[in-house]
Amino acid sequence: MNCFHREELLIAFQRIRNFVQHTPILTSHILNEMSENYLFLKAENLQRTGSFKIRGAYNMTKKNFDNERIKSVATHSSGNHAQALAFCAKELGLKSYIIMPKDAPTIKKTATESYGGLITECTPMLESREKMLNEILEEKKATFIPPYDHKHIITGQATVAMEMIDDVDSLDSIVVPIGGGGLISGSALATHYFCKKIKIIGAEPEKADDAYRSFASGSLQGLSKPAKTIADGLKAQLSPLTFSIIQKHVYDIIRVSEQDIINAMYTLWERCKLIVEPSGAVPIAAAFKMKNTKTKKRIGIVLSGGNVDIKYPWFDKLSLKSFFRV
Amino acid sequence: MNCFHREELLIAFQRIRNFVQHTPILTSHILNEMSENYLFLKAENLQRTGSFKIRGAYNMTKKNFDNERIKSVATHSSGNHAQALAFCAKELGLKSYIIMPKDAPTIKKTATESYGGLITECTPMLESREKMLNEILEEKKATFIPPYDHKHIITGQATVAMEMIDDVDSLDSIVVPIGGGGLISGSALATHYFCKKIKIIGAEPEKADDAYRSFASGSLQGLSKPAKTIADGLKAQLSPLTFSIIQKHVYDIIRVSEQDIINAMYTLWERCKLIVEPSGAVPIAAAFKMKNTKTKKRIGIVLSGGNVDIKYPWFDKLSLKSFFRV
Repeated sequence: MNCFHREELLIAFQRIRNFVQHTPILTSHILNEMSENYLFLKAENLQRTGSFKIRGAYNMTKKNFDNERIKSVATHSSGNHAQALAFCAKELGLKSYIIMPKDAPTIKKTATESYGGLITECTPMLESREKMLNEILEEKKATFIPPYDHKHIITGQATVAMEMIDDVDSLDSIVVPIGGGGLISGSALATHYFCKKIKIIGAEPEKADDAYRSFASGSLQGLSKPAKTIADGLKAQLSPLTFSIIQKHVYDIIRVSEQDIINAMYTLWERCKLIVEPSGAVPIAAAFKMKNTKTKKRIGIVLSGGNVDIKYPWFDKLSLKSFFRV
Repeated sequence: MNCFHREELLIAFQRIRNFVQHTPILTSHILNEMSENYLFLKAENLQRTGSFKIRGAYNMTKKNFDNERIKSVATHSSGNHAQALAFCAKELGLKSYIIMPKDAPTIKKTATESYGGLITECTPMLESREKMLNEILEEKKATFIPPYDHKHIITGQATVAMEMIDDVDSLDSIVVPIGGGGLISGSALATHYFCKKIKIIGAEPEKADDAYRSFASGSLQGLSKPAKTIADGLKAQLSPLTFSIIQKHVYDIIRVSEQDIINAMYTLWERCKLIVEPSGAVPIAAAFKMKNTKTKKRIGIVLSGGNVDIKYPWFDKLSLKSFFRV
């Protein structure tokens, strides 16, 4: 934590502000009724490249570009960071090499390629992708832009909560999905420096609950096998860096079932007219579990992304079985 | 036209402003590239009850409620006005009686009922619904709140363009879908009184092009049989009142095919993460036909509504045949 200064968040905010969308805060009477609270939706599904990931990717890539005149970048990502990095690289005139798991959604692969990203597929295990990444970094002399485990990524992602603090009065809490922990770490730093009274609450699928178990036990826990959740963006695991920030500054972590996620995603589609991917619906699913009979709270919700194959498979049949059989 | 005063638009704006959402203006680099212009999307799909119709419905209902202490309201509508009126009535403690065509989308019927609207179904022909409406007005002593053909509806709908004029600098034009003509009449009055240099452009399905033909010929034209377009909200026909405003203040009307509408709707879903109903996608389809090789224009687009059955039928198969076979 000592290595993160308030000024670094402000610099990140300035660096990215003319490149990313300042996404709107949306409200819905129906969601307020359903959740029995006041929800303020930060629509990062409407962000460039369809998710918040562009904030951290641009912050780190631009800093490296300005300071070291790098020629190419590389990363591993299940999709949203891949798209974001490929897009940032293209805009800065750089090449991008992307390691993606074989089971990443087609829409994310297609979008990454459309931004000029050069994809190499790997099996969805940590060792496999790290080996491939190291080969590419060496062979192509590319600069590694990690999906979450770096200060400049985390300060970039912090700008989501910084905008929310500016745009919404008197928030009681902000609910943020947890994958590798970059977004929630940035959110926690933003409220720590700019509005301490806002509680940061993590939301995680039961089927990828390494952050919940780490938080509860006080020591970093992993996943023994690849997570089988429809929230493909949240399969990554915490790093020592993100865990240390979460331990210090996060108020609580709420787990949600696969059915909770699907229900939340559908509610957002049908009632709020917003296409949100499963990972982006996880905080809404968590908010539906935060009902409070005393006083209504003002809860910020990060709809982290909208990159979902809209034709497939949850449309035809809502059962999870059909999903996991695909 | 003489009967519409500038002050009446301002009064409508004040009357509705704390009841409706001031919807955001969204932009998309991808849409700008595709259209070769700068598009500013007015997201009325995110409006309460899922469409702009609540603006006119509330303006007229509230005015009647305040002045005459009415007890119930009635209307005929293919869906969005029905939902809007049922919702306004509920909020004001009134009963609402709604005549809906048998082929109106299920989602619109269900929503209307969920707001307490009492639905009577009719065949989708003008005479049938007018006869039924008159019976109900007499029997229930209800006040008729028409879907478009009334000053207080038109001044309510004018608030969409009034907000756009406030929120976006230097618009060259605003593209608006045309059904019965309430929204485009209000838009034309708003720019006439508050920013004359903005051109109002209508967008209409080829399969329900009564406004296009009326505008081109200079005399009010009807549809000889019920329009077979997926843009269910645009099947209504102009009235003498709305036609007179369109004739005087609208710059052009662009027609789009059914496939254009589906393509636009899909683009908005997949690339912009916004669920828009077919009628709401019609102005985007029109904007894609406004390509200009000289200078890029700043074009406002009214995404008029988002009430679409997301499961059915355009998801399974994109062909129009499958739609019209249902």
